[in-house]
Amino acid sequence: MLINGYDGIGLNGILDAAGVPKGSFYYFFKSKEDFATAVLDAYESHYFETRSALFSDFSTSPLQRLKEYFNEAERMHMAQAPMGGCLYGVFGQTATARSPAFRQRLAAVFRRWEAQIEGLLEEAQAAGEIDPTLNPREAAAFLIEAYEGVLIRIKVDGNPEAFERFKRFAFGALAVRG
Amino acid sequence: MLINGYDGIGLNGILDAAGVPKGSFYYFFKSKEDFATAVLDAYESHYFETRSALFSDFSTSPLQRLKEYFNEAERMHMAQAPMGGCLYGVFGQTATARSPAFRQRLAAVFRRWEAQIEGLLEEAQAAGEIDPTLNPREAAAFLIEAYEGVLIRIKVDGNPEAFERFKRFAFGALAVRG
Repeated sequence: MLINGYDGIGLNGILDAAGVPKGSFYYFFKSKEDFATAVLDAYESHYFETRSALFSDFSTSPLQRLKEYFNEAERMHMAQAPMGGCLYGVFGQTATARSPAFRQRLAAVFRRWEAQIEGLLEEAQAAGEIDPTLNPREAAAFLIEAYEGVLIRIKVDGNPEAFERFKRFAFGALAVRG
Repeated sequence: MLINGYDGIGLNGILDAAGVPKGSFYYFFKSKEDFATAVLDAYESHYFETRSALFSDFSTSPLQRLKEYFNEAERMHMAQAPMGGCLYGVFGQTATARSPAFRQRLAAVFRRWEAQIEGLLEEAQAAGEIDPTLNPREAAAFLIEAYEGVLIRIKVDGNPEAFERFKRFAFGALAVRG
């Protein structure tokens, strides 16, 4: 689904890849959307925990942890290219074509991701590492949105320049002003 | 295709919506990808010319023209929601699942869009409106990538807050320092 999008791979393609018969699938899932929701649950839990672990490594400064988070994302995406990409971005791109329930599920994913980064940005403000006048929730949302755009560009171009730009400009927008 | 993505609508759905019989379609297009390339051509020409007209309105400053461009995009996307969204972002999200030719076509679209905004940023630098130390090409690419992420978020949330963040933070990253 990361490569092909929600609609770019059918249930048969997924079952073939997994070597699972259709009857077994319908024992666990009501529909493709029900399956995609379960994929989203597993994906979100994994990355939520990864961030929790990284963000609570108090041996480095809050801004260093934030930078390391995006550096780690860059390494992962570039190593997995073209598998790379973000499931939220892929699903979100056609969110308006989905059911209201699935779209609300995606909106909740973005809000929880945002809240984690917001916490780290508040720490960075307290440590004097970023502009104290920024709204940390809004800044977190901006970072996430800019990052989602980076992942689109990387799927088109296949090179990491967009990541370098993101680090320079998006972090520049957080910097303490002269 | 803007709503459903490349794979979310089949050729039959497109032909039904247009009221065109399949034989007529194959008289003009070899395949769905051939059709999508023609859609991309028309879409790119339209927006390239829109930008050319707006960017050459020398009655306002370069930075004002750039802001007006994104304000106009916001008005259009919010008025058309959920039709809004960017065809490049939608196609780009699953670009790695497409043919190399289609992916290269998308890469060229991004480069030409970038070059137009680069020109305006160079003007803005000459006018002292933005940071003179920025690389205008890289700054243009960053604006485009951040904007693509905004459009994903709007498809998920349906509200314009992501646009407000984009204007505050992305333009903040261009500002003259100190």
